[in-house]
Amino acid sequence: MALPPHRARASPDGPANSVRVKIALFVFSVYRRHQARGTVSVDKESGILTDAAKAGIGLIGLGTMGSNLALNIAENSVPVAIFNRTTETTHEFARAAGPLAKRIVACETLEQLVAAIEPPRAIILMVPAGPVVDEQVAALRPLIEDGDMIIDAGNANFHDTNRRAVEAATNGELFLGIGVSGGAEGARHGPSIMAGGPREAWDRVAPIFEAIAARYEGTPCATWMGEGGAGHFVKTVHNGIEYADMQMIAEVYGVMRDGMGMSAPQCGQVFARWNEGLLKSYLVEISARIGEASDPETGNPVLDIIADRAGQKGTGRWTAIEAQHLAAPVTAIEAAVAARNMSAASEVRAEGERIFGAAPRVLENGALSIDDLEAALIAGKIVCYAQGFTMIARASAEFGWALPLPDIARVWRAGCIIRSSMLNDMATALEANPDRNLMFADFFSYLLKAKHPALRTTVAAAAQNGLPMPALTAGLAYFDIMRTERSTANLIQAQRDFFGAHGFERIDRPGQYHGPWGASG
Amino acid sequence: MALPPHRARASPDGPANSVRVKIALFVFSVYRRHQARGTVSVDKESGILTDAAKAGIGLIGLGTMGSNLALNIAENSVPVAIFNRTTETTHEFARAAGPLAKRIVACETLEQLVAAIEPPRAIILMVPAGPVVDEQVAALRPLIEDGDMIIDAGNANFHDTNRRAVEAATNGELFLGIGVSGGAEGARHGPSIMAGGPREAWDRVAPIFEAIAARYEGTPCATWMGEGGAGHFVKTVHNGIEYADMQMIAEVYGVMRDGMGMSAPQCGQVFARWNEGLLKSYLVEISARIGEASDPETGNPVLDIIADRAGQKGTGRWTAIEAQHLAAPVTAIEAAVAARNMSAASEVRAEGERIFGAAPRVLENGALSIDDLEAALIAGKIVCYAQGFTMIARASAEFGWALPLPDIARVWRAGCIIRSSMLNDMATALEANPDRNLMFADFFSYLLKAKHPALRTTVAAAAQNGLPMPALTAGLAYFDIMRTERSTANLIQAQRDFFGAHGFERIDRPGQYHGPWGASG
Repeated sequence: MALPPHRARASPDGPANSVRVKIALFVFSVYRRHQARGTVSVDKESGILTDAAKAGIGLIGLGTMGSNLALNIAENSVPVAIFNRTTETTHEFARAAGPLAKRIVACETLEQLVAAIEPPRAIILMVPAGPVVDEQVAALRPLIEDGDMIIDAGNANFHDTNRRAVEAATNGELFLGIGVSGGAEGARHGPSIMAGGPREAWDRVAPIFEAIAARYEGTPCATWMGEGGAGHFVKTVHNGIEYADMQMIAEVYGVMRDGMGMSAPQCGQVFARWNEGLLKSYLVEISARIGEASDPETGNPVLDIIADRAGQKGTGRWTAIEAQHLAAPVTAIEAAVAARNMSAASEVRAEGERIFGAAPRVLENGALSIDDLEAALIAGKIVCYAQGFTMIARASAEFGWALPLPDIARVWRAGCIIRSSMLNDMATALEANPDRNLMFADFFSYLLKAKHPALRTTVAAAAQNGLPMPALTAGLAYFDIMRTERSTANLIQAQRDFFGAHGFERIDRPGQYHGPWGASG
Repeated sequence: MALPPHRARASPDGPANSVRVKIALFVFSVYRRHQARGTVSVDKESGILTDAAKAGIGLIGLGTMGSNLALNIAENSVPVAIFNRTTETTHEFARAAGPLAKRIVACETLEQLVAAIEPPRAIILMVPAGPVVDEQVAALRPLIEDGDMIIDAGNANFHDTNRRAVEAATNGELFLGIGVSGGAEGARHGPSIMAGGPREAWDRVAPIFEAIAARYEGTPCATWMGEGGAGHFVKTVHNGIEYADMQMIAEVYGVMRDGMGMSAPQCGQVFARWNEGLLKSYLVEISARIGEASDPETGNPVLDIIADRAGQKGTGRWTAIEAQHLAAPVTAIEAAVAARNMSAASEVRAEGERIFGAAPRVLENGALSIDDLEAALIAGKIVCYAQGFTMIARASAEFGWALPLPDIARVWRAGCIIRSSMLNDMATALEANPDRNLMFADFFSYLLKAKHPALRTTVAAAAQNGLPMPALTAGLAYFDIMRTERSTANLIQAQRDFFGAHGFERIDRPGQYHGPWGASG
């Protein structure tokens, strides 16, 4: 078989020197061209300059999440072309990429980026949510071709994603909105991925995302949720649940710390033990490690020197707002968002403690056991997820999606912040009956029957002793309302009829009625 | 002094018959002209046809609220020109107005309405909130003149009012957004009025609104709150507080009914007694009358035959959504809105009771006293208002208003649904220090110190026995968080740093730090 032409030209039986010069010139021209395009890279192992292959995907935005996602793609899937507004960041990133550098095409302009990607192209945006996404889409629009795809992988508000999906469809572009959970670590080594947009667009890039996603017993945690903003919506609810999960853990930590006088490492050890049981989850696991960590400088437990002001980026708030629009009660999430807001008001809280004095907080010996707290947290967690999945079901109907509730539980089993062993059981329960409140499913009603008495005892003891417990109390109230056939809303509706003539239904016959308070109402 | 011409023409010393015919023809022409304009009316007492005086104000929309407001204006202030989309409603209303009819100018078209009002005109819209308001404004726009004013007195979302205020200013029109509270009865005999828009526009119509408003010890409950949507914003928070007030009353009713086995009339009698103490308020007063009312047909207490599904029109939800945007914790209001949503899910609640069995609910003898419940409700109410006023203060800063917090408490003292004797004390406290959490004011911190132990006991007993108490428990958690200097948010911030590298502040030195969990985070 004949050698390919350029190797033939380099064969020793031709005019050797002339050919060698030509080859050298050709290589140099490739080098210069690729240097100009920023796509030149060096194989660190061989030390040989290589012309990078066309990238299989592009990524814009090299913050913590973007950088880690790019490395993940380069390592586990296709070569990736990268671009960052600050060029120096791009080159620093490529320099620091080590052996992965040869699968990374560093680009200095959007034009280079587009040119570096194999068509039909897919370009991931990992830029701050909000107007920056629209700016990037607008900047890419004139450069991309029919069939190219833009993928917003940031923490977008799903309403924005819905709008962008419509705009993209109008322009004949493909657009995906993808929720990526797992923090920096997840982005690097396997996040949970919730996708929304045209199904066929997802199918095209799914192999890439499945390759980089976390796996639960071999199944990749990367799932198409539905059209438009469906992926970002599911990610939003994920974050809302994350707020509640974290708050409930903090509440039992408060009981251990203030009610039982336990040290931070002791609390950490309890979390570590719980992480081997029903509460096995990433957040309990890291709570164990946090409790046990020492400040290298002072030797004190780190937890004790951390200020009690918790920040937020707004996704918990979005969940609460959407739940209000959907009339879906997510009271544990609302309580958690409020608690973060209140944590910020540390001076007001200090004034409150001066005025009212410190609450007793310390529990009587034996008032609560560690097992009570574990059971309370299990019950609270079930309630919180029941609220979250009910909200998702409500949104699915309201927005004309067909959100796959069991698949949502599955995609959260690994990679994301709220991953936990319980999510596998939730997937099973939702598979059996996605329309039923999760608290009522066999496994979880069995658990709740066993664990909710401890939640009662915990809430009551906390209330009596001034240990704040907003999310767990909200969870208990939700449980008690949802298992009470005859509520007290009859009085509320009577009041509404009295002052606003809104009428009421009767329990003994159909129709609308007014009370005998007449015009005085 | 010479008689005026038309009376001179009617003098007996002229050519009597000819003059009488001319007078008859003139009167008939006036009748026909006014009939065509729809402004003819009959003095019911004298039976004489009168040409109504030019109206001092116009009103569009004769639903329950609009009709009652029109009668109130006619009775206590200026003659009012009225218009309704369905003309028959207009005439029916005028016919039913009795002696007030002579101060009402019934109009069949918007042109007639505008013509009937003394310029510069003021026209009240009392139409369904939403697009109908915009349609009415658009329909009036070509008919009105410079200096005329449109007043939206419906339950508008204040964002819409802000937008309409800008549109009106652009068009050189005057526009007010006015919140009117007090239900049908208040609209007729004295509502509480919260106004927003240009100050000079309010000043022009203030005499009319002050004349029809409720009075608290002689002071009219009609106040200008600020520019744009300020009035409708204050009304929205009013309604949010109303939700929480009603829910907390329903929660203690539940303890009496289910926990103590009291009958509806017995509960009513308790409310009646409470209405003579610190809880004196419209909502407690009507709860007493509701509890004591019998169904005329069956003789049973009405309260017992009313279905336990409470409706809502959305203003509670708006409050919760705005509070999220403002990062203002209004947890008692959120709990109340959620409870209404859950009340609607009566079939799910029934399923829950089948699965989990009925909660014990019945309290041990002496576990709680009626006095405990009264004290718990007092404490809960203070907390709820502290949340509401904090939200108003936050909005005032956020939206560049200067919302007059003491005046807001004052305008709620009479006429509106949440009127209560405690609001006068709130006005005093807010006058002394509008920026301080209401719980911390002398009078209310004194009350809370005395009453919050009963709130603890009540919440604990309810939690132990499965009596749902979402709003009061949320209130207690808020109180306990806001009087705790060292919260448990240090764990939450540690978790955020662990998984998202968000950093934390330390208690022992300034600056931002990361935990020793390093890149594993």
